[in-house]
This record gives sequence, structure tokens and C-alpha cells, in this order.
Amino acid sequence: VLTVVPPEGTTSSEFTRAARLREALKGAPSPSIVLGNGDDAAVLRPGGDVVVTTDVLVEGVDFAAWAPWDAVGHKAVAVNLSDLAAMGAEPLAYLMSLCLPRGFPEPHVEALSAGMASCGALHGLPCVGGDLSRTSGPVVVGVTALGTVPPGLALTRSGARPGDGIWVSGVLGAASTGLGLLSQQAGLSRNILETLEKFASGAHREAVRAQLAPTPRLALGRALRGVASGCVDVSDGLAQDLCHLLVASGVGARVEVARLPAHPSADPAHVLSGGEDFELLFTASDAAAVERASRACGVPVTRVGQVTAGPGLDLVGLVSLPGEDVGRLDMGEMPRVSGAQGLRGYVHFPAAP
Amino acid sequence: VLTVVPPEGTTSSEFTRAARLREALKGAPSPSIVLGNGDDAAVLRPGGDVVVTTDVLVEGVDFAAWAPWDAVGHKAVAVNLSDLAAMGAEPLAYLMSLCLPRGFPEPHVEALSAGMASCGALHGLPCVGGDLSRTSGPVVVGVTALGTVPPGLALTRSGARPGDGIWVSGVLGAASTGLGLLSQQAGLSRNILETLEKFASGAHREAVRAQLAPTPRLALGRALRGVASGCVDVSDGLAQDLCHLLVASGVGARVEVARLPAHPSADPAHVLSGGEDFELLFTASDAAAVERASRACGVPVTRVGQVTAGPGLDLVGLVSLPGEDVGRLDMGEMPRVSGAQGLRGYVHFPAAP
Repeated sequence: VLTVVPPEGTTSSEFTRAARLREALKGAPSPSIVLGNGDDAAVLRPGGDVVVTTDVLVEGVDFAAWAPWDAVGHKAVAVNLSDLAAMGAEPLAYLMSLCLPRGFPEPHVEALSAGMASCGALHGLPCVGGDLSRTSGPVVVGVTALGTVPPGLALTRSGARPGDGIWVSGVLGAASTGLGLLSQQAGLSRNILETLEKFASGAHREAVRAQLAPTPRLALGRALRGVASGCVDVSDGLAQDLCHLLVASGVGARVEVARLPAHPSADPAHVLSGGEDFELLFTASDAAAVERASRACGVPVTRVGQVTAGPGLDLVGLVSLPGEDVGRLDMGEMPRVSGAQGLRGYVHFPAAP
Repeated sequence: VLTVVPPEGTTSSEFTRAARLREALKGAPSPSIVLGNGDDAAVLRPGGDVVVTTDVLVEGVDFAAWAPWDAVGHKAVAVNLSDLAAMGAEPLAYLMSLCLPRGFPEPHVEALSAGMASCGALHGLPCVGGDLSRTSGPVVVGVTALGTVPPGLALTRSGARPGDGIWVSGVLGAASTGLGLLSQQAGLSRNILETLEKFASGAHREAVRAQLAPTPRLALGRALRGVASGCVDVSDGLAQDLCHLLVASGVGARVEVARLPAHPSADPAHVLSGGEDFELLFTASDAAAVERASRACGVPVTRVGQVTAGPGLDLVGLVSLPGEDVGRLDMGEMPRVSGAQGLRGYVHFPAAP
């Protein structure tokens, strides 16, 4: 007599877990979701171009052991939404994959899923698919987000032209400051709110929130359709992400370091090179249109420089001698294919005096 | 003096690796890929409903340590394409995420990427995005595949009706047989072809190929649009996947075990419950239309049973006493929400006499 066995490596509780996750993350019905989670695949009816991106967070690499699990879930969705924002896209849906060690506590799964669900609900997108696997290693959370944009209106990195202004939204250095504050903080917290309560200063709390639960600039991205010539989100630090944009556009830039909008508690180094701010960095030829877009969505933007024929990025006023040009990224030497991702090897800063 | 530092956790070689992977996987240009890999996100112009699915493979759980890396890459893409096939979708593009331990050998990355690229090229879909992360644990390969289907024509699990016939494509039990053969095989092989050469028997080689480099039934899935009332791919074994379809459709079924198309080397148990065959299992009311679809794409299909009002799955002839009904899945007792994924707990097979 034959018995029907579960697929290798799964247990009854994992099946129940998959069903619970599906229910917790399914979101509200929408006419563009023809078929949600639960079949072989989901079916979406986007009504425009489809924008799609994927990001994976690994425990111990992309998030620390002390990170509350709801923050991990929130951030896994938010970092993907930030990529959609940089394309000017409207969020549509996401899929997630989760690799968990055997015996991973159910309350942690619930917190992780609550963080994902809350970020999804905040920005109106459901989870339409997922995969759950065991692992003998660290927790891995992968998210793929899909968005839509009217045909041909996606913002890209490649449209910046000499003479365009350069703007950045919000403030810089908050997330790295938050990471520093959290790393010094003794004792784990169970969730984002409990963690925030440990910080009395408003500026510190804002920095910690930027680290744990970043806000993707979706409304600004949409408002910049037809306005921005080039756009990128600040995930690796302003200097590096600007280089991505400049190389993709085949131009250079001059940035006034003193104009960069620093978070009040930020170390100056974090303003230029601190990662995970998830602000939008963009170029445009029409400053008045940028102002209108910023006002329309209530997100402050700061003009920080200008696109040049290049190649090269001039960071004006990088040390505290006003007007002195001390930093230059020589992009002429970069390998053609790997693009800005090889930039670090070509950063020529003079040694300290 | 400020220095621009690489994002935490990345090294120069990882940047180069990302660029190399992007180049190796980019595929041929296509009018539906507005913007491929390299920006914040990809932009696609699907021209129909979008079908999307994700699957993650974890080393030591979803693939064995002896698996050649090109097989892992091939399979990571193929299992997602099998889900698209079960929806009747045309492949459009995929995204991948890769978590690799520090020091993971570059030739293995190249083999993994060659396997992905070859599966992508075979089925005409490029990689339009990806994410690369370090991990302290096993290798994790995640793929999200997108496809298109004319609006409203996606095949689902939920349309089977009493009286419909039940068909399955190809043969069953090949992949589990291949897994058994490979597990007994001493000595690792570097790639799929070298592994296949170790098996002299044609049937064994076919089984090993089914395990290492499964063929998604994309042409059959497309041919079944408007013909199949319900469809699922056989990833967890025929009995279990049929239950998924039956529960989603709210029906039962009667399957003639003797009619199941067994791979010549397959253990009888593998025919009903062996996973990873990635054949299509589907229901339809018009047998002549099924025959035409099968001939049109050159994929053999076998009629194995009939949909009943249910609930319950009768596996007729499960032990070698013709006509005796020995297996029954009592689906009436299943929890409503978790659906077929809770089935195993409700499998009532009579004890052997």
C-alpha cells in the first residue's frame, strides 16, 4: 500500500505557515490583480509598462542580529519600493521568498510578516506570491516588487544632460546615523515602536526610524515623471549613486558639498557616503517644474549641483576650505561594461595635509 | 579628508562579478523589454496579462551538494518556467537573486550563470534584474519569472468541473528515479553533460536529465489555453498536485492508477508521489481538443481519469488488485483556508492486508 508523503524537506507546520503567511499578506482586492497568491503563479493586469526589481536581505549581512523582525519585513518591502520610486512607478504587487532555519520561532515569523504587511498596506500593494524554504544558514528574505508606469514615462539613470540641475529629496545621513545609534544600544527590542521609544531625542528617533523603516519616495517619483531627466535612489550613499547616474548618462557633475541637506545628527562623512537613505537623487532642466513637483507631493527637495559635460564628479568644498576642489572621480578610466560599479578603484582623494 | 567607501559588505570582486553576471544573462533584445538590467528596475511592455511566480533553491535542501552548478542554474529558471507553463503563459523575462558564501569559487559562479543563461536562451527570456549578497550559510538561488497571456486566458487550478477528463503530459517518476541514480553515483561531475555521460542506459540518462535539467512544458501550456478547464504542474508528485487542483476547483476525481504514464525505470511509488517531474496535469471537457493541442506542440498526453462531484480522490487500482479502491483523500475535512496544503494530514489509506 502506497502512502502519499509530503514533499521532501517540508513539515506539516511549514504548510500551515505558508497558508498563514498567504492570508496575512494578501492585501485588499484590486482590479489589477486578476489572480493573487495560491495558484501556480499570480496574474496581474497592469495597464501600462511594468517596472520590476528584486532585492534580498541576508541576516548578518544586510541586517543585524539585533534588528526587530517587523523592521526586517518592513525594510525588505521598502527597499524594493524605493527602486520603483526611482523609476516613477506606481506599486502594483510584490512576491517574497523566505529561507528559515529549522525551529525558527513562530512569533518571529509573525513579526516579519506583520512588517511586510504593514509596509504593503501603507503603499497599497498586496503580496501575490511567495516561496518558503528551509535553510541550514542565516535567514534570507527576498522580495520582488512590480509597479506600473504610463508607457514611455519611466524615469531612468541615463537621461541627464549637461546644464541640468541636480536635486536630492529629504535629508542625507539619517539611516547611517540610526545604524550607529542602534549598534551602541544595549538590549534587543521586540519591534520597531519599542525600539524607537528607547531614544529620547527627536532627531535620534528620526534617524533610527530611517534605519529600521525607511520611507520610499513613491509620490515624489510619480510627480517627477516628465520632469526629471535622470533619477536614482540613494541606497549606497550620494557620491556612489550619483556616479551610477552620471556614468549611465555619459556626463559629469559639480556638487556643492555645503548644500547637501544633512540630517541634524549626521556625521559629515555619512552625508556623502552613508547608505540606505532611500532618498531620490535626480536631474532636471526645469527648476520651476521641480519646485511644483516637490510642493505637489509635500516632499522637500534641495538643489545640490549641476550636470557637466564631464567626465568626472567635482565635489566642491569637500574639506572645510570653501571653493576648493578636493575630490574627483575619474570616470574616463572606468571599464565600459561594469559602469559605475567599478568606480571605487578610481576615487582619487588627496591625502590629508 | 573624506574617502568614499564601498557599501558595507561588498568587495571590489563582487562588483565585477555583478557586472559579469549581468552581461552573461542579458539575452537578446526584445521589443517587450523596454529597459533591461542595470537601472534601479527593469521596464517591460507585456501586451497582455502578466503572470508572475517565484521559487527559491537552497543548497542542501532543494539541491544536493553533488549537483553540478550549471544544473542548479538551469533548474532555478526551469522550475519557475514550469509554473508559467501551468498558467498557459509565454515567458517574458526573469530576475534572480544569489546569496553566496565568501570565497565561493568563480568557476562555480560561471557554471551557475551558464546554466541560467542556457535555460533562458532555450525559452527566449532574458534576465532583467538581480541582486547579489554574501551569506554565512548555504548558497541560495532565487528566481522570479514573468510571462504574458492574452487577457482572461490564463489557466488556473480552479476551473475543473465534474465530468471533465484528467490528463497528464509526458511520463511520471523520471526525476525521482534520476535523483536515486545520482545519489548512488560516486564522484562529482563538473557539469550536466559530464554527469549524463556516466550513465550508459538511455532510460537512466533520460531520468538523470529530468532531475538535473527539467523541461518546462511551455508549448503545451500555451496550446491548452481555452481547452483546459484546470491545470497545475507536477512538482510535488501527481497525487498531491492533483489534490491542489481538486480543492481549488471544489471537486473530486477518480484516477486509474494503471493508466499513469510511468517512466520505464521508475519505482511504482514514484509515479504517484515522486516530485519534480514538471509535467502538466490538467482537466478538460473536450477530449478531441486536447488531442489536437497535444499534436500541435508534439507533447504526448495520457488520459488518466475523470473529475467527479467529490469531495475525495479515488485512486483506482492502487494495489495490484484490479478495480479495488484502496486510497482516498477525504477532502471534506480539510481546513477551508489552507486548502490542499493541509491534505497530508487527511490521507486515509487502509492498512495493508
